[in-house]
Amino acid sequence: MARRTLVISAGDPAGIGPEVTIKALAQPAVRALAELVVTGDPAQLRRTAEALGLSPPERIEAAGDASRVVTGRLSAAGGHAAVAAVRRAVELLEAGRAAALVTGPINKEALRLAGYPWPGHTELLADLCGVPEVRMLLVTDRLRVCHVTTHRSLRSAIDAATRERVLETVRMTAEGGRRLGFERPRIGVAGLNPHAGEGGLFGDEEIREITPAVADARGEGIEVSGPWPADTLFWRAAEGEFDFVVAMYHDQGHVPVKLSGFDEGVNVTLGLPFLRTSVDHGTAFDIAGRGVARWQSMAAAIRVAALTR
Amino acid sequence: MARRTLVISAGDPAGIGPEVTIKALAQPAVRALAELVVTGDPAQLRRTAEALGLSPPERIEAAGDASRVVTGRLSAAGGHAAVAAVRRAVELLEAGRAAALVTGPINKEALRLAGYPWPGHTELLADLCGVPEVRMLLVTDRLRVCHVTTHRSLRSAIDAATRERVLETVRMTAEGGRRLGFERPRIGVAGLNPHAGEGGLFGDEEIREITPAVADARGEGIEVSGPWPADTLFWRAAEGEFDFVVAMYHDQGHVPVKLSGFDEGVNVTLGLPFLRTSVDHGTAFDIAGRGVARWQSMAAAIRVAALTR
Repeated sequence: MARRTLVISAGDPAGIGPEVTIKALAQPAVRALAELVVTGDPAQLRRTAEALGLSPPERIEAAGDASRVVTGRLSAAGGHAAVAAVRRAVELLEAGRAAALVTGPINKEALRLAGYPWPGHTELLADLCGVPEVRMLLVTDRLRVCHVTTHRSLRSAIDAATRERVLETVRMTAEGGRRLGFERPRIGVAGLNPHAGEGGLFGDEEIREITPAVADARGEGIEVSGPWPADTLFWRAAEGEFDFVVAMYHDQGHVPVKLSGFDEGVNVTLGLPFLRTSVDHGTAFDIAGRGVARWQSMAAAIRVAALTR
Repeated sequence: MARRTLVISAGDPAGIGPEVTIKALAQPAVRALAELVVTGDPAQLRRTAEALGLSPPERIEAAGDASRVVTGRLSAAGGHAAVAAVRRAVELLEAGRAAALVTGPINKEALRLAGYPWPGHTELLADLCGVPEVRMLLVTDRLRVCHVTTHRSLRSAIDAATRERVLETVRMTAEGGRRLGFERPRIGVAGLNPHAGEGGLFGDEEIREITPAVADARGEGIEVSGPWPADTLFWRAAEGEFDFVVAMYHDQGHVPVKLSGFDEGVNVTLGLPFLRTSVDHGTAFDIAGRGVARWQSMAAAIRVAALTR
């Protein structure tokens, strides 16, 4: 079997993205996972590698111009270069030259300075790929949790936990689960209310929205159950009863994930035409160029992306 | 120093309460924790001990009549006996003859059959003690989490997370913390919204209610901070940065507690004139009388109650 190819966008060249990419690729165990192509400014990547005393990436696809970017300094030029690296990566994926995407960190403020409309990576990727919505999956050794919603108020998250949106989340989780190597992923859906509503006593969103969505998904052949009381569901999943949990809102999923494996968490975007994983940190301009950035999150993101089928 | 006395109400005599009490008290390590007084029907407790081949509790305070109660069978008589045991225990506490209360399981349906107005233990105790409200604290080896609200819909829990209620919860947590042996408990308060609202971007309950409540509590000399993003707060608490967490709603606190120590969790009621702990299981009528009930939760409840000052 030919080795799978992953493409890594190096992120904002003023941040620690190039550094953690080069450091991760310096690990033989990381290089053994897949063929790894990096998109970014080749000259900047080579300079960064030299400063670290490491080899530059073997395969670089030129994208963006970092010649006017100052390490550690927020700039429009950094935002432009970061977006160029992502665009080039998506081109490679669409051309079938890579199977999955790993993204280095970009900076929201740099995107804004560069005049782009996207508040972050996720919206940029959805736009480039022409998909209307995506979902956030968090992966640790013990838990894999996909979120119906993420960055919105809890009150509005309740309103958004509709039958349609829950169903779409279960579908994306099932598809993402297959891409991650689960032949028939077992999915547990969390309730929104305590005790999953206790038969309507503590809220009726389970009855009105979530239970019908789970039934719809089962009708499509997905191995899914719920809504389950959240307080025991994550424990059951961590014990191996479920491969994936669907959480109704940000904190419901993020609290157990961060508690169960804070350091090793990988953020996966579902709903794109390919699997995308990302580091769990930002550009960290304050430490960029000092050679002290930790590469473990980039290595973890590569490891999860390498599972892709 | 004189040994502290704890009182244990044996629970519904038809359930596993008497059995787990007797089994726990058969452990020398449990008896070493405190003087232990059990309230219940002495004849029924002695019969149960005999059937188990164990000694009955050394100190029994007679309460209730279980002579017509059939083991494993729901009944009004069981509800009456269970309430009598709790009443007697509260009398001992109010007379200064015990320092803390440990409750065996009672049955909501038995309470109803017996014609009582209380839906459960907590309301019964609040009524007997004449306090308007109490809070639920969950304790494991890694986490201690007090809840602003528990058994209500998530939507109504948001409405109930008011400045006044959050402040009262922090006060009860501080007082309960001192009772549990923390000279100056360090309390972290969770946000309600993702990222604790991200400065108002994802909801304004932090700005309107929670932040002022934390300031009020600090003004009263309580060592409290927040609101913190929930997803990292529980992890920080588990790592030792906080002694107690105040969670805004049921699942926010229950998910990390059950994930971090499902088997060893102890439920503590705060806001009563004394510390009360309880087993984390029900009457389990289906296995009552078979001698197979696990006593570990009762032992854990006694262990936490024995910390009381």
